[in-house]
Parts: sequence; C-alpha cells; structure tokens
Amino acid sequence: MALPRPPVGEGVEVLFKPKGVAVIGASRKPGKVGYMVLYNLKNSYEGPIYPVNPNADEILGLKAYPTIMDVPDPVDLAVVTVPAKMVPDVVDQAGRRGVRAVIVISAGFREVGGEGVELEKRLLEVVRKHGIRMLGPNCLGVYSPSTGINATFLDPEKQGLPGKGPIAFISQSGALGAALLDWLDANQFGISKFISIGNKADIDEADLLAYLRKDPETKSIAMYIEGVAPGEGGRFRRALEETTHEKPVVILKSGRTAAGARAASSHTGSLAGSYQLYETIFKQTGVIPAYDTAQLFEMALALALQPPMLGDRVAIITMGGGSGVMASDNLAEKGLKVVELSPETQAKLRKVLLPIASPRNPVDVTGSATDEHFLESIRIVVESGEVDGIFLIPYLNLASITPELPRKIAALVKEIQQKYRIPFVASVTAGKKTWALAKIMEKEAGIPVYSNEASAARAMWALRQYGKWLQKIGVA
Amino acid sequence: MALPRPPVGEGVEVLFKPKGVAVIGASRKPGKVGYMVLYNLKNSYEGPIYPVNPNADEILGLKAYPTIMDVPDPVDLAVVTVPAKMVPDVVDQAGRRGVRAVIVISAGFREVGGEGVELEKRLLEVVRKHGIRMLGPNCLGVYSPSTGINATFLDPEKQGLPGKGPIAFISQSGALGAALLDWLDANQFGISKFISIGNKADIDEADLLAYLRKDPETKSIAMYIEGVAPGEGGRFRRALEETTHEKPVVILKSGRTAAGARAASSHTGSLAGSYQLYETIFKQTGVIPAYDTAQLFEMALALALQPPMLGDRVAIITMGGGSGVMASDNLAEKGLKVVELSPETQAKLRKVLLPIASPRNPVDVTGSATDEHFLESIRIVVESGEVDGIFLIPYLNLASITPELPRKIAALVKEIQQKYRIPFVASVTAGKKTWALAKIMEKEAGIPVYSNEASAARAMWALRQYGKWLQKIGVA
Repeated sequence: MALPRPPVGEGVEVLFKPKGVAVIGASRKPGKVGYMVLYNLKNSYEGPIYPVNPNADEILGLKAYPTIMDVPDPVDLAVVTVPAKMVPDVVDQAGRRGVRAVIVISAGFREVGGEGVELEKRLLEVVRKHGIRMLGPNCLGVYSPSTGINATFLDPEKQGLPGKGPIAFISQSGALGAALLDWLDANQFGISKFISIGNKADIDEADLLAYLRKDPETKSIAMYIEGVAPGEGGRFRRALEETTHEKPVVILKSGRTAAGARAASSHTGSLAGSYQLYETIFKQTGVIPAYDTAQLFEMALALALQPPMLGDRVAIITMGGGSGVMASDNLAEKGLKVVELSPETQAKLRKVLLPIASPRNPVDVTGSATDEHFLESIRIVVESGEVDGIFLIPYLNLASITPELPRKIAALVKEIQQKYRIPFVASVTAGKKTWALAKIMEKEAGIPVYSNEASAARAMWALRQYGKWLQKIGVA
Repeated sequence: MALPRPPVGEGVEVLFKPKGVAVIGASRKPGKVGYMVLYNLKNSYEGPIYPVNPNADEILGLKAYPTIMDVPDPVDLAVVTVPAKMVPDVVDQAGRRGVRAVIVISAGFREVGGEGVELEKRLLEVVRKHGIRMLGPNCLGVYSPSTGINATFLDPEKQGLPGKGPIAFISQSGALGAALLDWLDANQFGISKFISIGNKADIDEADLLAYLRKDPETKSIAMYIEGVAPGEGGRFRRALEETTHEKPVVILKSGRTAAGARAASSHTGSLAGSYQLYETIFKQTGVIPAYDTAQLFEMALALALQPPMLGDRVAIITMGGGSGVMASDNLAEKGLKVVELSPETQAKLRKVLLPIASPRNPVDVTGSATDEHFLESIRIVVESGEVDGIFLIPYLNLASITPELPRKIAALVKEIQQKYRIPFVASVTAGKKTWALAKIMEKEAGIPVYSNEASAARAMWALRQYGKWLQKIGVA
C-alpha cells in the first residue's frame, strides 16, 4: 500500500547531508554519467561511497557491489543513473535496503511522453511505497559546496563550478543549470546549494524552499522555473509565502510570452501557464521577479549580503560625474529617490571635500579625491539619517586613491552596519586589476559589487522590494 | 580676425593620423599627465614625437624643446597638458607654428564656472584665429588602435585598453570613458577609435560623426552623451541623420530622469535637456538608444559585425530547451517574432535530427546532438526563407559536440552570408573554457556572442531597428 505524500520539505536534507551514498549504475568508462557522478562524489564527499555495478569489483579505487542490497551501512542516499526502464526496480531495491532518498538522473520519463509517462507513475508509486524521497527523474543532481557533496555528472574538465557562497539555486532546466554554474564560477558568485529538479515527480520547489528556509548556509534563493505542475499552484504559493517571511526569493520565470510558453510546452511538456498568474503570485508572496539570468543572480547576491532597504531614499557617492548621472537615472527609473541632501549635510560635506567636489546628491568627490574624502562622505551621509541606502561608485585606479581604499571602505561599512541597518551596493566599471580590488569590498564587508550602474541599481531595487514586503507583513 | 567655425568634420582626421606630435607640458615625472601622454605616444605612435618643456633637454629618451616654436618638421598635432591659464598662449604658439589641431587635456575651463568660462572663450578665439581644430579642453584625449596612436594619459599599469576592433566610441565623460576602456578590454571588445570630447568647445559630436562616417575601420558608433550644447541640436541631428544612412549609431544618453538631469547639471554644468526631445531625435534619425553601458557596446558589436535585419521573423536553434524558452521570451518582449516553421521545413528538420529533438521553433536539437545536427539545422532554416534572423544557442561543452563546432559554424555562416543577407547572433552562457570556444564564432565569422539570451535578443533587436530605419529611408 502506497504511503501518502510526505509533508512539505520532509526528508529533503538527506540530499545534502547523506550518511553514505550509493551510485546505482556506476560506470568504469570515463565520460559516462555513471562514471562522472562517482568521480565527482569522490572529489567532494567525505562519507562512504558505494558504486553499484554487477560487472565490476572496483571503480575509481572504490569497492563495487552487484546490487544496492549488498552495500554495507551507512547508506541513506542513492544516485541512480541506469536506463529508465530499470529505474523503478533499482529504486525499489534501494527502498528495501533502507535509503531515505534517491536522486534519479536517468532520463526517459514524462518528458518523452507516451510510455515514459507511465514509467514515471510507476516510479513514483515505488517511492511512495517505501516512504522515501526522490529528486528527479531527468535531473542533473545536487551540488552543495556548503555541505561538501557534488552528486552531478558535470565534467570538471569541461566546466567550472562556483565556490561556497550564500545563494541557493534551484533550476528546472538541467542544461541551463549546468551552463549557469559554469558562468557563476567565472563571474565569482558563490552558492550554498544547487538543485536540478528535473521532472520533479516527488521533490518539488515547495519541498526545497521549506528546507532552504531553515538552511543556515543559504541567505537568498534564486530559482529558474518554466512552470508549476497543474494543481500544485497553491502548494507553491504557500511555500513561497512562508519562505519570504524569512529569506528573500528571486525567480526567473520563463515562458512569459506566447512564444516562450509555446517553447516551454515543447521543452518540458508542461504548460507554462499565464505569466500574469505568476506575477500575481510573486506580488502576493514578496517574490522578486528577474527577467534574465544575470539579473537573477545579481539581485540574489545583494539580497544575500545586505539588509533590506526600508525606505526609497538613496545617496550616491561617486568619484566620477558621469557614473553619478547614470546611477541617478537607473535608480529613478526603478522608482528609487535620489533625494537632495539637507543644507546642513551639504555644508558638512563641503567642509571636508575638495572645492571642486559637489556635496549634492550624487555626492561627487571627483577624480582628484583621496581615500579620506570618500570615506568621510560615507560617514556624513549615513549619519545624516536622510537616506535609506547607499550607492557607492569608487574609481579605484585614480592616482590620488590608494589600493587600501576597498579595505578601508569595508571596515567602515562594517562599523556603520553595527549601528545602522542601511544597505550598500557598489558599481565599479573596470577591467581585471581594478575589479579584483573592488571585490575586496564584497569579500570583507558583503558590499555587492557590479560592473555597471544599471545592475547595481537593480540590486538596490531588489533590496527595496524585499524591504517593502517585510514592512507589509509587519516583519521589518 | 577670427576665422569662421570650420565645416562639420573638417580637419578632424589629424587627431588620428598626425604627421608629427608635440606634447606641450611634457613632464619627466612618472605619473604626471604630461609624462603619461608622452609615454603612451611613445608606445603607440610611429611618427616623430616632440616633448615641449623649457626645463628639460630630453624626456623618455626623446629630445625636448623649450617651446613648440623650436620643434622641427613635421608636426601637425599638439597635445596640451599645461595649467589652464597658460593654455591660450601655448595654443597660440602652436597655431603660429603651423599645427593643424590641438588636443587640450588641461582642465579648469567652462566646467569650473566663473573665470574658467572666460578662459575657454579666449581659448576658442585663439583656435579660430588660426583656423585650427581643438579637441577638449578638459578631455582625456584620443586612442586610436586602428591608426596606432594613444594620446591619452591613461596609465597602462593601472588599466587595460581594448584592442583593435570595429566600434568607434565617443564619450562626453572622461572618467567614465576610461573605466569603460578598461571594461571593454577585459570583456574582449575591440574598438577603432576612442574620443573623449570633454567640454567640446570646438570639435563636437557632429564633427566626429562626419569623420567616423567615412572611416573604413569603423563599422558602428557608440556614444555616451549627457547633453548637447544649447543651439547645437540641429547640427547634432543633421550629423546623426547623415551618419545613420551609412553606419549604425547607438547612443547612451544619461540625464534621462529628473534626478539624472539634476546630477548632469552638477557634473558638466550643461543642461541635460528633456529626454523626450532626444528620444524624438533618435527616432527620427535612426539612432538606436541604449540604457546602460553594457547594452551600449553589446548592441554596437552586433551592428558592427552583422547585416541589418530586414524583417521581424527569428529562428532559434538551441541545444537546451530552457535557453530556447528564455530566448523566445526575450525576443518576443522586444517585438520580434519566433514564428512557427512551415510543415515542410519541420519535416526536413525531423529527417536529419534525433527523434527526441523538436523541429519547431525554437529548433531544439537537444543536449545529445552532434555537430552535424546543429549545422544542418542552420542550413535548413536559412534555406527555408521563412525567417529574417538566426539566434544560435550552442552548448559547446556537451559530450556529443566536438571542439571544432565553433569553427564549423563560422565557416557555414560565412558561406551562407555570401548568398543570404541574414544576420546571426549567439548566446552562450558559460565559464572561461567554453566562452573561449564560443568566441571563435565571433572572431572567424563575426557572429556576436553574448553570455545570456537577453543580451543576444537585445542585439538582434538592434539589428532589426537598424534594418527598419534603412528600409524607411529606402536604403535597404
């Protein structure tokens, strides 16, 4: 008799912190999925790993077992890479052996239609019978640098993986997820967990949100979704609402247009649904919408690192007039207010700045400024209490600026944020050397750094949106 | 008696192709502006360079002269870095000595108000008296990798400069221009010319457009502007209109919002003017508007490398379903049409593709595709005549794809474009290794490659906008 669907989020943790992992379908052939999963686990996971392959004694130096029934304790997670038709049987064995969760990487289920749909149904019945959890089928697996496990088949020779960081990333698309991991690595984003949900026959977004909400390593959640299964809208919505009470969620929903929805239905067979419906859900649950992949992570980064913004007023502190103009435009176009500073505050600024500097907002310390001009401006503007967020545009390669400035900014902002809950973002348009300097602010004080004013303004907007949400529900 | 303002564009060429260059204010002190200009010239320019400094015999191994009057032939360009008050006199000497143009880097003119305004007036009178041209004052200078001259004071130890490429870049902001050069270098954009126009007392956007329009090295023009001087709107507009008949122009106009306009007026003292007015001018002259710096160059790149798009219909050819959905959304949101392919074309595709592939649009060859599946799809879709532009999303790190695919795509597209005037763009979300592979398509066939679907869709939109303009004026 099948057990009911487990409560939302129950048993998901084992995906990230298993006590032992079996790879059913482990292969000796480099490049094969069953080889790569084993290879990646061996290079990431410290617990026992059990290759399961009836035709091998040993793979990658690990003792192999003919079936999972033969595997010794402890084992509570199985990664499955055998052909689709064999999957229900091996998952049944895994259930009998006592694993608590399976990751089914194998494809050939609902996404291919016809018999695949039936096969997926049978697979889910097996999962329910044993009361275990399943990620997939037709997924890429899980990569969790925060807990030290890479149960994906991504080839480290062919692509990069991001290091440890505060963003959890859930992707409905495996290929896109993989490509984004590579991009995240190259662009120096760090993640807590990556989960490819595939056909989400059992574990779905709601389950993962419930887990990530409580995960101390996760500070914000970024999701790529094409559509939620029919009838699951309520569940999805409740999970979002509960999550955004505690952590910010950014969602890139594709299939927004008629053309996109048609493409999505060819892709996953699922209906993308009217985007208006999703938009409404996002608004009602405090989700921040993203419209492309770069935005998704740029906003998730700010939300992970900075406090929410509790009002609309922004001060821009810049070393370049042009950048200040662009930041003003980008902020104003997002509904944020680059307010005039009071005569008192302007007078204080004028006192410490160069005569050619502008104490208005943007505060333009100019390209002749010293470290102290920039730092003093930050302090004066924050202490004025006249703004709710600070937008920094330091030019770190100026002759009058020292390479120590990013470190000094970081120290000052940390000091400020012990007293004032005011968010900071920074925009630094630069090549490699100056960019590396700029990133020190991010590493040491969590000031997210963007390569142009528009991205930084969007990040600030996301902080404001989340602040508005928390104010609305009475949490901030 | 002052000569009249020269005809638009006249005498501008000497900035880029001087026969000899004097640096008035050349300094022996590393880091000083007058040192860096000389240093950069020495490392970029093959003609004779004459440091002018009354207190030096030799600088950087070059014989120095007390005044420009003492400099031997040939010399037709002078770069001026002396303090503002001395500028009118040294420019007068340069005029008497017979130079045809000056680049005045020195600041302290109109941008500081008060006496600076008068000083700039006097300077312009001197320029007009001699009938020479002047770039600046208060500018960064000129960098022209296509003709081999770097007359800026940018320190190569502190920042990068982009290599040779097809985009000309005009910036009203010096600091922002410098930062963007560094960013362009790190992001592998190439430029033909960079011109920092500063206060544009003499040479302005219209002059530069007139020159760049005829410059064979320039295929598209990217501009950052804050505002056009009062009374110069008509001149600017005529220059734009004449230019876009021959070459695409993309403009990032800042000071679009009230907040931005206020910031611009603090910055350059000039009125930003109503953005609505600029928008109207852009529409009437076929200028493509950009709203942030990344967009500016991403669009300029496509416009430089690809033919304009002569209809709205796009085909997406992808190896990943999710990316196809996102591309569909991004294109549709820009008003482009991801049209259904005809049953005949779909049948042709079905014949050559894997059974799991989708022959609809997006054509999804899937992550199991071979090089040939992707190449054949391109050929079939182009030959159908059913679309006006092709959006490629190859996943270059797939197991079934060879590292030769980018080269093969480049060869095929070059062959196709000999017969069909159809534009291509590509989106490849990836880290360093795969990105380097993807860029082969750009280097070998001019297919612009972007790191996400939104940027590639915006580039395609720019190609369509320019195509519409050329159709409207009867050129395409």
